[in-house]
Amino acid sequence: MATTNAPSPDFSKGDGLVPAIAQDAETGDVLMLAYMNAESYAETLATGRAVYYSRSRNKLWRKGEESGNVQEVKAIFFDCDADTILLKVRQIGGAACHEGYASCFFRQVTPEGLKVIAERVFDPQEVYKKK
Amino acid sequence: MATTNAPSPDFSKGDGLVPAIAQDAETGDVLMLAYMNAESYAETLATGRAVYYSRSRNKLWRKGEESGNVQEVKAIFFDCDADTILLKVRQIGGAACHEGYASCFFRQVTPEGLKVIAERVFDPQEVYKKK
Repeated sequence: MATTNAPSPDFSKGDGLVPAIAQDAETGDVLMLAYMNAESYAETLATGRAVYYSRSRNKLWRKGEESGNVQEVKAIFFDCDADTILLKVRQIGGAACHEGYASCFFRQVTPEGLKVIAERVFDPQEVYKKK
Repeated sequence: MATTNAPSPDFSKGDGLVPAIAQDAETGDVLMLAYMNAESYAETLATGRAVYYSRSRNKLWRKGEESGNVQEVKAIFFDCDADTILLKVRQIGGAACHEGYASCFFRQVTPEGLKVIAERVFDPQEVYKKK
């Protein structure tokens, strides 16, 4: 995905960050939402792998750097205001969520409260071992 | 969608706002991303129609209140951190975007720049007539 004169999202609204939605390129499932700054967006373009910016850790977050569950970026879209990014990705390992689910949206709001509507793909304690 | 003791998203991180992704319940297309505050979330639950909070207008945004293109909410999901909402919706009028496209993500990043990859469903100038 070599891009010259690559169009840039509008990073001005959210303190230099824009939300980025990762959607499974094959199934259409929404996997997660994270944030990108200009540097992570540029690295995503350059490498073809999703790189976010972690608001809690205040640094680049190369998705999968610990778990191995990287996201291969198949296509990138901007919304009408260019302040949200949509990535269509191939999720290596089959799970985007650090809790071991394919999608981070594994809980549905129901009249009885939040209900888990998916099965775990991996055991987080195995994947994120304390070192 | 009457909910008692409805679980609440974590509104503490983003100045009282959380991003909400609207996904077409039938096609799986990601339609748009907007923001919700506690009031708009509660009204969404109570009415079964998507209500957002407009950051530019600083007020509740009852999606479709001007265009008629309301979103009927079929299901609501929280992500693992409860700070992003996913709505599965039926988009009345067939277009979520104020520019007349089915999805706000109608532009793809390509080596030649942004490329429009969808057809307009409606003409914005007809729908949003100056009064």
